[in-house]
Amino acid sequence: MPQQQQLNDITTIFLILLFMVSLFPDAFHFIWTLPLSYIFSKPPSSPADTTIATMSWFQKQITLPAKSRGSYLITDQILSALPEIQEYKVGLLNLFVQHTSCALSLNENWDEDVRADMSDALDRIAPDYGAKGEALYRHEYVKMDIWFMESRTNTIYNSAEGPDDMPAHIKSALIGASVTIPIKDGKLATGTWQGIWYLEFRASKHRRNIIATIQGDKGQKA
Amino acid sequence: MPQQQQLNDITTIFLILLFMVSLFPDAFHFIWTLPLSYIFSKPPSSPADTTIATMSWFQKQITLPAKSRGSYLITDQILSALPEIQEYKVGLLNLFVQHTSCALSLNENWDEDVRADMSDALDRIAPDYGAKGEALYRHEYVKMDIWFMESRTNTIYNSAEGPDDMPAHIKSALIGASVTIPIKDGKLATGTWQGIWYLEFRASKHRRNIIATIQGDKGQKA
Amino acid sequence: MPQQQQLNDITTIFLILLFMVSLFPDAFHFIWTLPLSYIFSKPPSSPADTTIATMSWFQKQITLPAKSRGSYLITDQILSALPEIQEYKVGLLNLFVQHTSCALSLNENWDEDVRADMSDALDRIAPDYGAKGEALYRHEYVKMDIWFMESRTNTIYNSAEGPDDMPAHIKSALIGASVTIPIKDGKLATGTWQGIWYLEFRASKHRRNIIATIQGDKGQKA
Repeated sequence: MPQQQQLNDITTIFLILLFMVSLFPDAFHFIWTLPLSYIFSKPPSSPADTTIATMSWFQKQITLPAKSRGSYLITDQILSALPEIQEYKVGLLNLFVQHTSCALSLNENWDEDVRADMSDALDRIAPDYGAKGEALYRHEYVKMDIWFMESRTNTIYNSAEGPDDMPAHIKSALIGASVTIPIKDGKLATGTWQGIWYLEFRASKHRRNIIATIQGDKGQKA
Repeated sequence: MPQQQQLNDITTIFLILLFMVSLFPDAFHFIWTLPLSYIFSKPPSSPADTTIATMSWFQKQITLPAKSRGSYLITDQILSALPEIQEYKVGLLNLFVQHTSCALSLNENWDEDVRADMSDALDRIAPDYGAKGEALYRHEYVKMDIWFMESRTNTIYNSAEGPDDMPAHIKSALIGASVTIPIKDGKLATGTWQGIWYLEFRASKHRRNIIATIQGDKGQKA
Repeated sequence: MPQQQQLNDITTIFLILLFMVSLFPDAFHFIWTLPLSYIFSKPPSSPADTTIATMSWFQKQITLPAKSRGSYLITDQILSALPEIQEYKVGLLNLFVQHTSCALSLNENWDEDVRADMSDALDRIAPDYGAKGEALYRHEYVKMDIWFMESRTNTIYNSAEGPDDMPAHIKSALIGASVTIPIKDGKLATGTWQGIWYLEFRASKHRRNIIATIQGDKGQKA
């Protein structure tokens, strides 16, 4: 019957429409409300929702190559280990070193003399020994007196940790174990002369771990 | 009429379908796109949405027991005050002390000599008086000269704040009022030897407030 | 035909219904599930979603007026540049200075003597010259020896950067380029005596940029 046939046609069209809408509700909604977006200054769909859907956290451990006492520029190393920074429109990068005798800082990224001067200046601020060569710290030395009284000479202090351990802790407290750097449009929002520094305070080589935590809004960026 | 009856049946089916889809749009979408998820490597539903739904902020004030000058390990105290850390798969803990004559730091968590040495070292870096006992700071002393000229002796400085106040501000600026620590799988991602330190710089006992702010992604963790 | 007419009516109703649902899926879902929310203690819509929908990031560059060496209280300036702080129920403000010869800190906000004392104390910790007037730093001076040997006098060091540049880098590393401050109920959760300080370490006037990053949960606040 033609009428029955017509009904079936309508049924088919309805079903297809229904499935189309169900399958692509956002697309349908977008097309349907497109003319409205010209009428109202703000479209009915909340822009807040869109923004939130792109918020994200990322965490990664980075192991630095073993280094002895010195200040090292590690900007390039950090950037190449964290290509994920480029995904964030706005955010923060936190770099956290899991040790108490080294530090992270932001400082001058051009003249390497600045890095050598920094290590020397910190040695003056937190020296291994006093001005007359006297011991300054309880840490290790008092114990050494008790444990190795016989084997210890008067002037040379021996310890498992070494005379540079306590000054390293002091420098670490002064400079800090972490830096927080803003991210803007997929790049670290550092100044022209700012670089990421890793400061090693121990005389012997140490391998250090950094926990990098990125958080932010990935925005509308493709 | 059978045809009218048939039409009503179709109407009813349509209405039910429409309501079902409207009521459970996600479920319908999931069932309908299930075969597609085998074809495409990535399912059409964004996995980012799932992650976002678990992001969270938490803030709490912690009051430390009153302490006089010294360096104190407060890791256990902070962890027991913040069981919420365990809920976060990835995140950051910010501890912020609301005072300007004490500080927070991350440092060695085993030998208590390190803590005593730290307080002494900071006294050398920011002393109460100069090497010959001379006043180093304007703060309080100049005012004392004016206000209490008669009652002041030549060598002893008296003030409401005390001679340890300005050095305390300097130490606070050097060490810092806050620490930011990454959270990984419900635990602070600190190194083996890293502990949270509260450094009190005032000679007399002070009760200090910390604002703890946790933010992160609770992930799929139950 | 009346039956055909009736069919068309039904078609029209279906189409309108379909469009209504498609246009306002949330509204339809809300109305339809309203009776259910009285039956179940928790409404089917996740309350986590509501919280997340209010999370937000905000970033802005603030340029400070040019200043020469000194410590400056900039709390009011920062607050008036960032009215957005008031929108956050809980969050964090990160202030990051894009330079390596100045710093940001939190310190005493009342007595301006504290600020003058701080600048002097940092000069003692990282002096321009040694106690006997000797050069302390490689940065600039060694190069000056090579480049301007003839024009250089024995006692006066000349350089493009000046004798206050390396000490400025040291002070910047000690104090730090950024501060992170908790936000609570639309206000910075600083203590009574805490203010935001900008410390300029260069003798000559410099104009400095700060990147302010606010992140947090706007909560249910209107």
